[in-house]
Amino acid sequence: MTIRVGVLGAKGRVGSAVCEGVEAADDLELVARVDHGDDLQVLVDNEVQVVVDFTTPGVVMDNLEFCIGHGIHAVVGTTGFDEERLTQVREWCGAEGAGHVLIAPNFAISAVLAMAFATQAARFFDSAEVVEYHHPNKLDAPSGTAIHTARGIAQARKDAGLGPIPDATEQTLDGARGADVDGVRVHGVRMTGMVAHEDIIFGAQGQTLTIRQDSYDRTSFVPGVLVGVREIASHKGLTVGLDSYLEI
Amino acid sequence: MTIRVGVLGAKGRVGSAVCEGVEAADDLELVARVDHGDDLQVLVDNEVQVVVDFTTPGVVMDNLEFCIGHGIHAVVGTTGFDEERLTQVREWCGAEGAGHVLIAPNFAISAVLAMAFATQAARFFDSAEVVEYHHPNKLDAPSGTAIHTARGIAQARKDAGLGPIPDATEQTLDGARGADVDGVRVHGVRMTGMVAHEDIIFGAQGQTLTIRQDSYDRTSFVPGVLVGVREIASHKGLTVGLDSYLEI
Amino acid sequence: MTIRVGVLGAKGRVGSAVCEGVEAADDLELVARVDHGDDLQVLVDNEVQVVVDFTTPGVVMDNLEFCIGHGIHAVVGTTGFDEERLTQVREWCGAEGAGHVLIAPNFAISAVLAMAFATQAARFFDSAEVVEYHHPNKLDAPSGTAIHTARGIAQARKDAGLGPIPDATEQTLDGARGADVDGVRVHGVRMTGMVAHEDIIFGAQGQTLTIRQDSYDRTSFVPGVLVGVREIASHKGLTVGLDSYLEI
Amino acid sequence: MTIRVGVLGAKGRVGSAVCEGVEAADDLELVARVDHGDDLQVLVDNEVQVVVDFTTPGVVMDNLEFCIGHGIHAVVGTTGFDEERLTQVREWCGAEGAGHVLIAPNFAISAVLAMAFATQAARFFDSAEVVEYHHPNKLDAPSGTAIHTARGIAQARKDAGLGPIPDATEQTLDGARGADVDGVRVHGVRMTGMVAHEDIIFGAQGQTLTIRQDSYDRTSFVPGVLVGVREIASHKGLTVGLDSYLEI
Repeated sequence: MTIRVGVLGAKGRVGSAVCEGVEAADDLELVARVDHGDDLQVLVDNEVQVVVDFTTPGVVMDNLEFCIGHGIHAVVGTTGFDEERLTQVREWCGAEGAGHVLIAPNFAISAVLAMAFATQAARFFDSAEVVEYHHPNKLDAPSGTAIHTARGIAQARKDAGLGPIPDATEQTLDGARGADVDGVRVHGVRMTGMVAHEDIIFGAQGQTLTIRQDSYDRTSFVPGVLVGVREIASHKGLTVGLDSYLEI
Repeated sequence: MTIRVGVLGAKGRVGSAVCEGVEAADDLELVARVDHGDDLQVLVDNEVQVVVDFTTPGVVMDNLEFCIGHGIHAVVGTTGFDEERLTQVREWCGAEGAGHVLIAPNFAISAVLAMAFATQAARFFDSAEVVEYHHPNKLDAPSGTAIHTARGIAQARKDAGLGPIPDATEQTLDGARGADVDGVRVHGVRMTGMVAHEDIIFGAQGQTLTIRQDSYDRTSFVPGVLVGVREIASHKGLTVGLDSYLEI
Repeated sequence: MTIRVGVLGAKGRVGSAVCEGVEAADDLELVARVDHGDDLQVLVDNEVQVVVDFTTPGVVMDNLEFCIGHGIHAVVGTTGFDEERLTQVREWCGAEGAGHVLIAPNFAISAVLAMAFATQAARFFDSAEVVEYHHPNKLDAPSGTAIHTARGIAQARKDAGLGPIPDATEQTLDGARGADVDGVRVHGVRMTGMVAHEDIIFGAQGQTLTIRQDSYDRTSFVPGVLVGVREIASHKGLTVGLDSYLEI
Repeated sequence: MTIRVGVLGAKGRVGSAVCEGVEAADDLELVARVDHGDDLQVLVDNEVQVVVDFTTPGVVMDNLEFCIGHGIHAVVGTTGFDEERLTQVREWCGAEGAGHVLIAPNFAISAVLAMAFATQAARFFDSAEVVEYHHPNKLDAPSGTAIHTARGIAQARKDAGLGPIPDATEQTLDGARGADVDGVRVHGVRMTGMVAHEDIIFGAQGQTLTIRQDSYDRTSFVPGVLVGVREIASHKGLTVGLDSYLEI
């Protein structure tokens, strides 16, 4: 039995990569490609079980209302969900969780796992530091992922009652020790040729543990989306973040 | 309130590193150093709460019988535990788990975490491979840890219903693709200057996740032993393997 | 003063990436795009100074005869040059080196440098080993580059009078220690998501030196081609291999 | 024919590691161990050909005057040589270069090679950045080696007429992009368990080249000292820096 999938935003760069991923998977069947201006009724006519939505903040809410109302599960990578929108989606899903919705800001499964492992590991090590590497056209430093990772580590250390990370630096050039994110140092490297990479490093006596995540191209979100499509039937109501699906 | 610790095998290379580690920890107090020929009664006289045993297969069973009998918890890194010995220790611990014993083959916390994370990550990736690096005096290749890691990955893939790892290699020099451990390729590098290091690499579309473990010197087991000492009070009966203490 | 460049095979995947690279460079001017069926006279009409040839073995010799005959320098990435063809090209270039031709099997400048540095470093270290990483669709293992690198290291060790690389391995799984290339161990990892990567590792007492090369996408030959275009005026006659242009 | 070696400062931590290194080498013979208070005449009596001096700024000049005066070559790792002292040593060596002296601030051969390769590679890449990793007790950040490396890269880029390294960063946390050393960004990571490590990263279209240096323990200077002892006979006069001996 395959899962019948529809893709909303099917002609976009991201959506078309999702379409290719669904078509390449033996257990999934792509039965509807919907884009700007198409009637959503095609989802019902083709008996879609799960939609993947990579559209825009302007249309995603209408899409969700329609899908939930017609018993179609939704895996959503579209941005722009604030607390108000999430509350609305939860309401549509209903008290008994009739609707199944997954909204995730990041579907790169290696990045989601890296962050989850970092949070788990943090309390066992004296030191923790993050180094992220991106192409030189990136506007922000450090990356949002690296800041998020550092905050997760800082919180886990605090929960475990750990004190400050040891650092005897007295003499320093400005910036050498990176940015301070809740006490965890974060460094951003900008390098022609690179795409998106992150080293999360933990140190204890005589040893280190490094969790390294590499994104080599812009289709790295596809495997995470497919996990969402395959698992959504067993996750009632609204879920935010892919990590809840990974059971780690 | 500090924990009162005794070290058995205190004069050995490993035991003396444990002694240093206990003394450096604010929440632990080293109240007994016991070695070959010393009377175990000193443990009772000094009100030891937890012993750390890095002795020899010839004496460790007597040590455990004494400790369990006197209500002293035991964290054990001594080797040579077969099923028969474990059954005996379980019996001594008693039905109500009056005795608390942790026996672990590997206390390097970064290695234990690396293996646990690898097992968790395995089912989300198409590819998995292990590369371990050691000094050139090592007699076996690949390392026991790498074999153990590969087996854990293979089992997790099997449990998740994943098929064989993709590999189109047709033309090859003998050995180029490493050793085949239950379908997972394992490579052993031998390099002057290195100590003990392991890369566990996972790949999916457009991305990889690498879990890297580095041991820089031979005291890397100390932090794991201290976790054992701190946590043993809440683990009744016999526990085998440090991972059960890490709650991951 | 810019250099006037023509591209032969301009519509091919590689040729069009070269066109983009030339157009993006301030000191180069793309004045002719030639492809299958076009008259080479356009090169003369547009006063091309340097051509870049990424065509096919079937037409490259005619291209070279024309270019050398018209005083146009040629940077060539087309494959299929055996000794007979090279001799012919040398003859065309003439005794006084009137023609300038660069033929290179590999224009990825980071790979060419990695190999050159490896050869230079080899004699100072007890140990040397190569690990290459590629996508799982690659048919050969280890890669040609890794074999070539290992041979260069082996030759440099031999020239320096070094003995065999230390390795105490007694107990091993078949393949664990990699392929033996002239006494240097080479490992090939095949990993979904990866493109083409190589670690060349050297070890001596208490230290290692690792030269790591990463190719993230298939346009990584462009910077090397541009080095060829810029430097060819000062290299008379036929040159084989980009390394001669790097002055290292 | 072995080389007859004497070690000055033989009882010090560094000197005794040198003694072990000399004794382990087949082509060298340790014939004199000299320390504080010993008469240097023992060097002459034992027909020492090369001394290794790891003593103190207070005695090293007397040692050098004696050695040069007695035709003994000197490999020197002692610190504190300013321009005045170097001029004095050059004078002692004599116009014809009768004396042979090597004074080097860094004998870790992997670090010296890493720096030399970085300088050679710099002009071929758009981007360059340095990340160094040390134990958390280090007082300065970034390390002197990393600053020196960055300066060498900056100079090589300038000599080749390269412009600034591309970096579109607009929004940043203070320190995220590291320290600016002559336009090259340098990051210092401080990590329990680590010793001394450096990544020198270069990037061009679609590719990176990383030169990684790892020091695992404090005897990593020994192989470089032995290179000095073996090669000094062919280097007349005063040489500063091990790189001149490496012929790269």
